[in-house]
Amino acid sequence: MNFQSKFLTRSQALRSLLCVGLDPDFDKLPEIVKRSPEPLVQFCREIIDATASYAVAYKPNIAFFEMFGSSGIRQFEKVIGHLKSNYPQIPIVADVKRGDLDNTAKQYAKYYFGDLQVDSLTLSPYMGLDSIRPFLEYQDYLIFWLCLTSNPDSAQFQKKKFSETGRTLYEEVVYVANSVSTSNLGFVVGATSPSELQTLRKQNPDRIFLIPGFGAQGAKLENLLPVCGRNSLINSSRGIHFASNGSDFAERAGQEAEKIHKKMQTQLANLS
Amino acid sequence: MNFQSKFLTRSQALRSLLCVGLDPDFDKLPEIVKRSPEPLVQFCREIIDATASYAVAYKPNIAFFEMFGSSGIRQFEKVIGHLKSNYPQIPIVADVKRGDLDNTAKQYAKYYFGDLQVDSLTLSPYMGLDSIRPFLEYQDYLIFWLCLTSNPDSAQFQKKKFSETGRTLYEEVVYVANSVSTSNLGFVVGATSPSELQTLRKQNPDRIFLIPGFGAQGAKLENLLPVCGRNSLINSSRGIHFASNGSDFAERAGQEAEKIHKKMQTQLANLS
Repeated sequence: MNFQSKFLTRSQALRSLLCVGLDPDFDKLPEIVKRSPEPLVQFCREIIDATASYAVAYKPNIAFFEMFGSSGIRQFEKVIGHLKSNYPQIPIVADVKRGDLDNTAKQYAKYYFGDLQVDSLTLSPYMGLDSIRPFLEYQDYLIFWLCLTSNPDSAQFQKKKFSETGRTLYEEVVYVANSVSTSNLGFVVGATSPSELQTLRKQNPDRIFLIPGFGAQGAKLENLLPVCGRNSLINSSRGIHFASNGSDFAERAGQEAEKIHKKMQTQLANLS
Repeated sequence: MNFQSKFLTRSQALRSLLCVGLDPDFDKLPEIVKRSPEPLVQFCREIIDATASYAVAYKPNIAFFEMFGSSGIRQFEKVIGHLKSNYPQIPIVADVKRGDLDNTAKQYAKYYFGDLQVDSLTLSPYMGLDSIRPFLEYQDYLIFWLCLTSNPDSAQFQKKKFSETGRTLYEEVVYVANSVSTSNLGFVVGATSPSELQTLRKQNPDRIFLIPGFGAQGAKLENLLPVCGRNSLINSSRGIHFASNGSDFAERAGQEAEKIHKKMQTQLANLS
């Protein structure tokens, strides 16, 4: 099943758009987990098992694994393995933000889609379209191209307008993406820019949006849902999995995910 | 010793600017190497040992390691270890092109500078300045920010001009970089855009440039040296290490590196 179908099936079954991010920042892990031989695996497995009933998708960010080098990446692979073995119906977005030359991109694509078989990847657009072409050839998998990110300095480049085209950089990214006739390309659009998000959604009703910046980063659900529409994954990471750093961390994460899940269900039902 | 001093010392000792790239694309490795239990390590070690007399710096691209997941990253760590143990005087530029939120960037910085202790990293600017601040705090290490890359689609975004500032995206990256008073920030500028390179060099005499696109990607040395100046690393990867894919691969790589090295020495001596 391709990403789009998997996302749609799951999203409709749960009547929600919640993507549970996995950012296992070692310094913030509960003490009991820190002492485990594979703390990132243990933390993520417990969080996953506690939140799986409410997760339309999971988004592990590889940086928090990569900081431990090869042993961290081995833990990343185990977390992906845990998801694929136990929750094959839940799509995985590997948040890697790669972006490199064509021949290099081929190598990345082979690993993430060919070997690891995550369902989707985030990629950075700075180098242009040829840096993502090798990924788009894997038609059952989806690329989320960074468009408008949720960090404070995102406006520095992304919101500046090009004189030649009248489009801002992030609009240019969307324009270039839309110039290739492929359906397996979505966009990362931060919840922290609601008016831009609304415009982008109107112009791109069929593209899947991955929306960070909800929860710990500040944006509110009630303002978000009416503008992003149903073709979106709304991500919450720290707000869910760091709800407690005591021994009840998994239980509290499950409760937090359930709370957001129910709120989303109610508010989505109210949408026309 | 910080990156700048290490680079300057090495560059002056060799009277050259040659950066030897390590892109161990598995499919292109010599058959004899492919059968090794750690083919990427074996290939890179032999290439390094054969070219070390001519290398001002080494630039391993992590993508070719990452495609083998954790076992690839373990090989990457061993290659870095080989360089640091045997050639501590040669600076290492890890070509990773990362770029992420502030708290995520901290994790990357901790690994690459704190643990692995490479001398320098390439990073992508799409998300803005806050995505590299945690790296810049490691003052002995240098960041090469992607500016004008050497791939065909680089012009798609990078060469478009912003109406508000009159600068193109890549010029805006340089402008933002120069707004922070830090000396440990250099730029990646492709050899494939010689006139832009010349202008950037005139405007930024003190920034170190990392220049890909020479050799296999097409640009000629005689056109390059007069415009890029001495504060540059000129990279050649495949042109050197894939000079032969027979059992003489290392020997031929050494010869190729020596050839470029001597040409650089002659032409640099001719510069005013």
